[in-house]
Amino acid sequence: MSSGGIDTNFTLPSRYYTSKEIFQQELEQIFYSKWIYVACEADIPNPGDYVALKLGTKSFFLQRNEHGDVKGFYNVCRHRGHELVQGEKGSCRRLICPYHNWTYNLEGKLMVARGMNPDFPNEDFGLNPINVAVIGGLIYVCLSSPAPTDIEEVRSMLEPYLAPYELPKTKIACQKDIIEACNWKLVIENNRECLHCSSNHPELLVPLYSSGFGKGLDKDNIQPDERRFQEKLQEKEREWENLGLPFELIEFPDGLWFRTVRLPLANQCISHTLKPEDACKKLLGNFSRPEGSGLSLWTHPNSWNHFLSDHIVTFAVFPLSVDKTLVRTKWLVAADAVEGVDYDLEKLTYVWSKTNAQDQSLAEGAYRGICSGGYMPGPLADEEYLVKQFLSWYNDQLTQTPVH
Amino acid sequence: MSSGGIDTNFTLPSRYYTSKEIFQQELEQIFYSKWIYVACEADIPNPGDYVALKLGTKSFFLQRNEHGDVKGFYNVCRHRGHELVQGEKGSCRRLICPYHNWTYNLEGKLMVARGMNPDFPNEDFGLNPINVAVIGGLIYVCLSSPAPTDIEEVRSMLEPYLAPYELPKTKIACQKDIIEACNWKLVIENNRECLHCSSNHPELLVPLYSSGFGKGLDKDNIQPDERRFQEKLQEKEREWENLGLPFELIEFPDGLWFRTVRLPLANQCISHTLKPEDACKKLLGNFSRPEGSGLSLWTHPNSWNHFLSDHIVTFAVFPLSVDKTLVRTKWLVAADAVEGVDYDLEKLTYVWSKTNAQDQSLAEGAYRGICSGGYMPGPLADEEYLVKQFLSWYNDQLTQTPVH
Amino acid sequence: MSSGGIDTNFTLPSRYYTSKEIFQQELEQIFYSKWIYVACEADIPNPGDYVALKLGTKSFFLQRNEHGDVKGFYNVCRHRGHELVQGEKGSCRRLICPYHNWTYNLEGKLMVARGMNPDFPNEDFGLNPINVAVIGGLIYVCLSSPAPTDIEEVRSMLEPYLAPYELPKTKIACQKDIIEACNWKLVIENNRECLHCSSNHPELLVPLYSSGFGKGLDKDNIQPDERRFQEKLQEKEREWENLGLPFELIEFPDGLWFRTVRLPLANQCISHTLKPEDACKKLLGNFSRPEGSGLSLWTHPNSWNHFLSDHIVTFAVFPLSVDKTLVRTKWLVAADAVEGVDYDLEKLTYVWSKTNAQDQSLAEGAYRGICSGGYMPGPLADEEYLVKQFLSWYNDQLTQTPVH
Repeated sequence: MSSGGIDTNFTLPSRYYTSKEIFQQELEQIFYSKWIYVACEADIPNPGDYVALKLGTKSFFLQRNEHGDVKGFYNVCRHRGHELVQGEKGSCRRLICPYHNWTYNLEGKLMVARGMNPDFPNEDFGLNPINVAVIGGLIYVCLSSPAPTDIEEVRSMLEPYLAPYELPKTKIACQKDIIEACNWKLVIENNRECLHCSSNHPELLVPLYSSGFGKGLDKDNIQPDERRFQEKLQEKEREWENLGLPFELIEFPDGLWFRTVRLPLANQCISHTLKPEDACKKLLGNFSRPEGSGLSLWTHPNSWNHFLSDHIVTFAVFPLSVDKTLVRTKWLVAADAVEGVDYDLEKLTYVWSKTNAQDQSLAEGAYRGICSGGYMPGPLADEEYLVKQFLSWYNDQLTQTPVH
Repeated sequence: MSSGGIDTNFTLPSRYYTSKEIFQQELEQIFYSKWIYVACEADIPNPGDYVALKLGTKSFFLQRNEHGDVKGFYNVCRHRGHELVQGEKGSCRRLICPYHNWTYNLEGKLMVARGMNPDFPNEDFGLNPINVAVIGGLIYVCLSSPAPTDIEEVRSMLEPYLAPYELPKTKIACQKDIIEACNWKLVIENNRECLHCSSNHPELLVPLYSSGFGKGLDKDNIQPDERRFQEKLQEKEREWENLGLPFELIEFPDGLWFRTVRLPLANQCISHTLKPEDACKKLLGNFSRPEGSGLSLWTHPNSWNHFLSDHIVTFAVFPLSVDKTLVRTKWLVAADAVEGVDYDLEKLTYVWSKTNAQDQSLAEGAYRGICSGGYMPGPLADEEYLVKQFLSWYNDQLTQTPVH
Repeated sequence: MSSGGIDTNFTLPSRYYTSKEIFQQELEQIFYSKWIYVACEADIPNPGDYVALKLGTKSFFLQRNEHGDVKGFYNVCRHRGHELVQGEKGSCRRLICPYHNWTYNLEGKLMVARGMNPDFPNEDFGLNPINVAVIGGLIYVCLSSPAPTDIEEVRSMLEPYLAPYELPKTKIACQKDIIEACNWKLVIENNRECLHCSSNHPELLVPLYSSGFGKGLDKDNIQPDERRFQEKLQEKEREWENLGLPFELIEFPDGLWFRTVRLPLANQCISHTLKPEDACKKLLGNFSRPEGSGLSLWTHPNSWNHFLSDHIVTFAVFPLSVDKTLVRTKWLVAADAVEGVDYDLEKLTYVWSKTNAQDQSLAEGAYRGICSGGYMPGPLADEEYLVKQFLSWYNDQLTQTPVH
C-alpha cells in the first residue's frame, strides 16, 4: 500500500513522531479542520449543562440549550477575553463572565454588556460558535467553517448501528484520563492492531477474540486458531439477524473516516469482564437480555468505542504536544442504574483500566525507541493492515508534505 | 484612540499576549531599555546591604555603598562569570566571588585578582554597572546606557507627592510573591481599571471608592452613584490644602510614564483595612494623626503603589516568560514600628492579599480565554480609559511593529 | 593561546553556554561523532548483562555477548520501533521486544519476526549497531561510522597506565547521579583547574595536592608552597620506578584527547579519604600493599578518573540540554570486596560526594552569572592552562564557527 509521500507498508519516518512543525501541521490540517470525537450526550444530560474541552491549544465548551440541543462555543468572552465557563463541567442558564459580568444566553447572544454606552451594538458581540454534530449520542466537533459535509454520510450509515444502545439515555459511571508520554499517532496505531494482544493483554483477551481486528475476517484463509472464532461468528450472525441488530462490517467506505463491525465475545462472556457475567444489571436501550457481542466503532483520527448490551466504553485521544497525549476513557451505563446495586465500578472498569495501562506502556516504549537515534521505519505485518489504513488516511489529510 | 498599528479602543490581538517573539521584543525595547521600578530603599537600609533581582533573563543586584548611595551591578564576576552575590538579600563590605576569590569594593572596583600575574590591569576589570535612580525612596533601574533622561522630569514632579511619607525611613513588614500564569500585560491592564471591582473585590471596596480609577474624576458628568465620592472629595481637598498635602491629578504628562492622584478613602476608613481603624499605630513621615486618604501612583510598565498615612503598599510586576508573571507586593511601615505591638501582619496585609488573589484569578482566566482560539479583540468601555492609555503607551515603546 | 574563532586566553562568549543551536551543534559534532566515555566493564560483568545509556537524545545499550565481548546497539526494535531493553540495567540471553515479540540474539541478529510472512528477510532487519572500544576496562562509544581511528593510539598509550588496576576485575560499589543546572562545558572547565580548590574543597585537599593540575609541574618555577609537593614527587617517582608503575605525564599528545599522570597523595594519605587509611581493605590488581599515589586520567570531552591502589573513582558527564548536565560518579572496588567488611560506603564515597556537591554549586553559580546579561569573557590565569587546552580542543572539533 503506497499513499502519496508515505510508504504505508512501513511505520512512519521518525520526524512524523517528533517534529513540532509536523505536530503543528497536524493540529491545523486535522484536529482543527476535521470532525473530531470529543464527548457524548451523557456528559451534558440537562439544559444548561456544559462541558469544557480542549483540542490542541483551542478551548471551547459544549452546552445543552433550552431546547435540548447541543451547542458549542469557544470559551471566551467578547469583552476582555476572559474564559466564560470554569472547571470541566457545570450548569447555568445564563453565561455570565466573571470579569465584568457581560452576560450571554444559551444561544450565545449577548444580553448585557456592562459598562458600555446605551448605543452599543450587542448583536455584533455574540459568542464565537463552533460546529457540532451528534451521531447516536456521540458528539463530534469541527473548529473550521465550513465544516466537511461528509458528516451526514457518516451519520446515515452509523446511526442504525448505534441506535439499539440508546446512548442519550445513559450516564457516565466513570471517566479516567491518562496522559501518555508519546506522540498521539502511536496511541492510534497501537489501537489499530491486535497482533500485540496475546503478549500484552491477558485481561482483554478473556472477553475479546483477537480475530476481527486485522485477522479472522478473511474467510478464505482461516488459520487453525481462528476456527472457533469463525464458528462462533456464524452462530451469532443468525442470532443478530433475528434480533434485528446490524452487524455487517463497514470499513472506511469512500474515504470516510470510520470502521464499525459487530463481533462475538469470547469465552461465553456477555460483557467486557473477566467472567461470563454482566458488568451492569440494567441493560441498555431495547435489550431485554444480555447479548454476547460487542459493536466496535473506530473513527479517525482519535477514537475507538465498544458498545455492549450492558455498558459502553468510549475512548477519545487528545494530542497535547508532539510528545504528550491525553487518552480519555468513559464507561457509560443505563441512566437509571445504581452504583453498588446494579454495577460495581471496580468490576465495570477493570478490563479496560488494565488494558489502557498496558497500551500506555507500549506506546511510550515505542516513542522512546523511535527517539533513540537508531530507529528506521519498520515493516508492517498483514495483521497490521488497519495501521496501514490509518497511515494512508493520515497521509491524505496533510495537504502539504511535512518537512523536517 | 488610535496609536500606530494598534487600535487602542480594543484589547490587543491575541499574538501580543502569546507570541514568544513579541515577548522578547518587549524585553529588549521596554524592560531592558526603560526605567523600571524594581525595589525600594527599605530593601537595603544599611551600607553593604544588597538585594538581588532579575528583569527578564538579566540578573543584577542593588547595594547601598559606604556613602549611603544605592549602586547597581550585574551579578557576575569578571573572571569566570560566577554570580557574585547569592540568595535574595544579604550584606557585605567586600564582594568576594566564591569561585576563585576575586574581590571588589562596593564601587565595583576590582581589588584582588587572585591567580593573575602582578602586571594584571585590575582597573580594566571592574564590575559591570547598571543605571539606578531613586525617587522618594522608590528604586528604578535602567539596563541600557545611556538611560532615558526623562527620569529627572519624573523625579521633579513626583517627589513632592511622595515626600510626606518618608519612605526611606520605613521598613518592609511583609513581602509576598505571586507567580501568575498569564502574560504580564494582563496584570497591568487589570490594574488599570476598576470596572471589575464591584463584582470581584468586596474587601478592597471597603476602603476604596471605585471612582477615581476611570470614572468619578470627570466632574462634568457625575453619575448618581458617584455623588458621595465627589462630595467626599471636595471636603477632603480642603483638608489636604490645609495639611499641605499635594493632591492634584498628574496623568502621564508629555509622554511621561506615571499617574498620581490623592483620593479619599471610603466608609470612614483611615487605611486599607476592613474597618475604620489603622493598620499600624506608628504613622509615617510627618503625619501627626491618621489621614483618610491614599496617594496612588502608577508607573508604566510595571508598577502601582498606595501611600497611606500609616503604611505603604507597593507592587512590582516582573515578566518571567510570555505566560508567567511575578507580582511582588511589599507592605512598608515606619522603621520603628514593632510587629505585634504597633501592627498585626494579618490585618496589615489582609485586603491586598485577598485582592491580589482575586486579580490573579481574573488575569489567568483572561489569559486562558485569549488562548482559546476563539478570542477576538474586545471593545473597551469609557471606564477602562486607563487601559487604553496603557496600550497607547505600550504601542509607542515598540520601535518596530511586532509580527506574528 | 588563540585557536580559530575563539580566544582561548578568555572564557567563551556567553552564547556558547546558552545557545540551543550551538548545543545542537556540539551534540552533532562532538557527542555523536567522537569517542565518548560512557561506562566501564564492571557495569556488565557477565554474558547477557546490559546497561542502557543516553547521549543527547540518542539511546542505546551495551551488552556483554556470549564470548565476553562488549557490544552496543541502539535501543530500538526494527519492527515498530519499541525500545528493546527497559530500565537502566538487566540481563538476558535473547533480546525480545515486549511489543510484538520480535527476537534478536546477542549479536543483534533477528531470530524471530513474529507476524511476518515466511519469506520475510530476517537478515535485513538486525539491530542497529554502534561502535564500542574498551581501554583498560573503560568503555568508549562512537555513534558515527566510520569512527575516528585515533582510538587505537589512545589505547596503546593508555593501557600500560591502567593495567595495574585491573578494572575488569572490579565491581561498582556505588553510583551517584547528579543533574546540574548548567551547561556541560562549565562542568568540564571546573574540573580542568584546581585554582578554585583552596577556597572550595577542604575535604579533597586532604588527600590531594592542588599542584599537578595546572601548577607544580613546571619544575623551573617552583613556588614556595609547592616545595613539599616537589620533594614528595621526587621521592615517590623512585618508588614508582621500583614498583614498575608508569608515572610520566602524557598530555594531549598529537591532538589526542587525553591527559594522564601519576601524582603523590598529600598528608600521608593512601587513598581519597580524610585520614591516612584505606577506603577498601582489598587492594586492586597486582598491588600487594597500599600505595600513596593516584593515577589521574582526563579524557575530552566528558570524563575524569582517579585510580588508587584500593579503589577507582570515575566520572562521566552527559549533556542533557543546553542548561542541564548529568554527572555520573562511580566508585569501584575489588570484585571480591565485601561491603561492611572490607569497605564502608559512607567512607569510600565521602570525599568525592562532598567535592561533587561543591563543584555543582560552583558550576551552577557560574551558569547563573554567565546568563546575567552583564557577563563578559574573563581572563584565564596561568594555573588555568588546562581550561585553555580544553577550549582549544573544543574549538577544533566544531567544523563550523557557531553563530548566535
